[in-house]
Amino acid sequence: MRVLVTGGMGYIGSHTCVQMIEAGMTPIIVDNLYNSKETVLARIEKLTGVRPAFFEGDIRDRAFLDNVLAQANVESVLHFAGLKAVGESVEKPLEYYDNNVHGTLVLVEAMRAAGINSLIFSSSATVYGEPETVPITEDFPTSATNPYGRSKLMVEECLADIQKALPEMSITLLRYFNPVGSHQSGEMGEDPQGIPNNLMPFISQVAVGRREYLSVFGNDYSTVDGTGVRDYIHVVDLADGHLAALNSKGKEAGLHIYNLGTGNGFSVLQMVAAFSKAAGVEVAYQLAPRRAGDIAECWADPSKARAELHWEATRTIEDMTADTWRWQSNNPNGYPDV
Amino acid sequence: MRVLVTGGMGYIGSHTCVQMIEAGMTPIIVDNLYNSKETVLARIEKLTGVRPAFFEGDIRDRAFLDNVLAQANVESVLHFAGLKAVGESVEKPLEYYDNNVHGTLVLVEAMRAAGINSLIFSSSATVYGEPETVPITEDFPTSATNPYGRSKLMVEECLADIQKALPEMSITLLRYFNPVGSHQSGEMGEDPQGIPNNLMPFISQVAVGRREYLSVFGNDYSTVDGTGVRDYIHVVDLADGHLAALNSKGKEAGLHIYNLGTGNGFSVLQMVAAFSKAAGVEVAYQLAPRRAGDIAECWADPSKARAELHWEATRTIEDMTADTWRWQSNNPNGYPDV
Repeated sequence: MRVLVTGGMGYIGSHTCVQMIEAGMTPIIVDNLYNSKETVLARIEKLTGVRPAFFEGDIRDRAFLDNVLAQANVESVLHFAGLKAVGESVEKPLEYYDNNVHGTLVLVEAMRAAGINSLIFSSSATVYGEPETVPITEDFPTSATNPYGRSKLMVEECLADIQKALPEMSITLLRYFNPVGSHQSGEMGEDPQGIPNNLMPFISQVAVGRREYLSVFGNDYSTVDGTGVRDYIHVVDLADGHLAALNSKGKEAGLHIYNLGTGNGFSVLQMVAAFSKAAGVEVAYQLAPRRAGDIAECWADPSKARAELHWEATRTIEDMTADTWRWQSNNPNGYPDV
Repeated sequence: MRVLVTGGMGYIGSHTCVQMIEAGMTPIIVDNLYNSKETVLARIEKLTGVRPAFFEGDIRDRAFLDNVLAQANVESVLHFAGLKAVGESVEKPLEYYDNNVHGTLVLVEAMRAAGINSLIFSSSATVYGEPETVPITEDFPTSATNPYGRSKLMVEECLADIQKALPEMSITLLRYFNPVGSHQSGEMGEDPQGIPNNLMPFISQVAVGRREYLSVFGNDYSTVDGTGVRDYIHVVDLADGHLAALNSKGKEAGLHIYNLGTGNGFSVLQMVAAFSKAAGVEVAYQLAPRRAGDIAECWADPSKARAELHWEATRTIEDMTADTWRWQSNNPNGYPDV
């Protein structure tokens, strides 16, 4: 199966490419390298023996996409490309709406013109806004608390309307919970530019000495130890979820929506403790006030994906932390520039 | 005051240009003529003695907009351009999101590059979704029931986030209720392509013999006579609302939101009766089932615009119907092609 992978050089995209190649699929990567490095390609090749086709360009460039699709001969598209930092989205909402919403519209227009009907979109549990209860099922009401989340929700809404108007299309919305971890080889992992926005790369950068300490935002939530609880999912499990979607619902016309999470919640301090144990390194942290918009706890009900995609997350918190540490300690400064 | 008017050849845009010129302002029109005719320009000139500058092109074309803005030297933008038919939006959601949402993003990007900070956006009472009570105030919750409405709501949400990130900008969202009527000269009016989507042009096309009868969708609502009640506002009052906004809040940084309506509701059958009386022509109609998504009644609380923009609608239902008839009977087939 030949599949276009937008944002295929990024954290989740690159891990998904490795899993695809190992499953005998052919990913064709499109990436503008805004938030990733071309050296990822060499790592994919090192792990799999295959260097995927890579087209550098922006999905908002319709002529570029048309050209890629004319050569790529794909039957499906995995759409990872997008901006993803909540704080940055507040500062630069135009960029977020342009990249994420407009970018997706151009991609779908190009897919239509090329006769490709299957799209799997990287959505996020952020579309549940501030859920009233946990665990979260796919029929919970949606809302957004910041421009990043709003851009994901808008894309979901656009795609739902598009699928209704074009019933021959298969559109799958995968709502990721909190992806963490790295390929178990230690060759690939999360490589944020600048200050990490997410917990796990921040912890690992403290552990490896790139940052002095972790700030823990709020320890007075109604949770096991007062710190926020999230559903951390190993990035390779998440990648496998895409393969499961491609092989099942991705071949069926309709709008398909799935949570990709483990169904388990861990607190910030539990993650810190697990990481310290896996790495054998103390992770310094300081308590800080709550951040606006953060919720106390959030985890998935993953049963729909289990039932319909025949997929479930199997990797443990020990896998997540040990694999992250292998990546971070082998690559303290992330991917090389060249 | 020099003002860029996107969609300035359309129904509301063209009437606003006339009012602007009469008030000593200079509109510079951008329009792709997708849903309007260039002959509108001659009518504006006939009524005002001024032929506005007109640039034919699409707001999604950034290079085109940059070129226009480089020549136009405007201090503010009235943004009317967009697709507006609910039924069509269900069939062609991609086009609606691309024209309305992406189009607005490109416009704002071009404004930023040109140093223009004042934007007045044509929003709609459709963003109130299915309001629980009437009259509707600006702080009612928003939602959408179709892709057209969702595109308007998305633009509002994008613009609110953009204004928050760029506090020097003045962004005004004008939520129109149901614009009807025509310039009192009978030289300008609503000229829908194909089957009219709105009540008033449908009535007037029946009256002038272009259509056999009006379908009245539902006569079992809890209203005065069972038919749907809406807040019809004369298009020249609506146009004046834009001038009021330009001259007040359009010069103040911030996000400003106003209902533009009369505060009065009329039923479908009341509009038919008023039109028949004004035109001296019977308007044939047939009862038909309710349409999905239609609400029983909807009218504005216009007090915020009155208090802050010092504007209110003054034209009556007799003005609306008589002016529409003057336009339709003088121009049974709308604007000439050339």
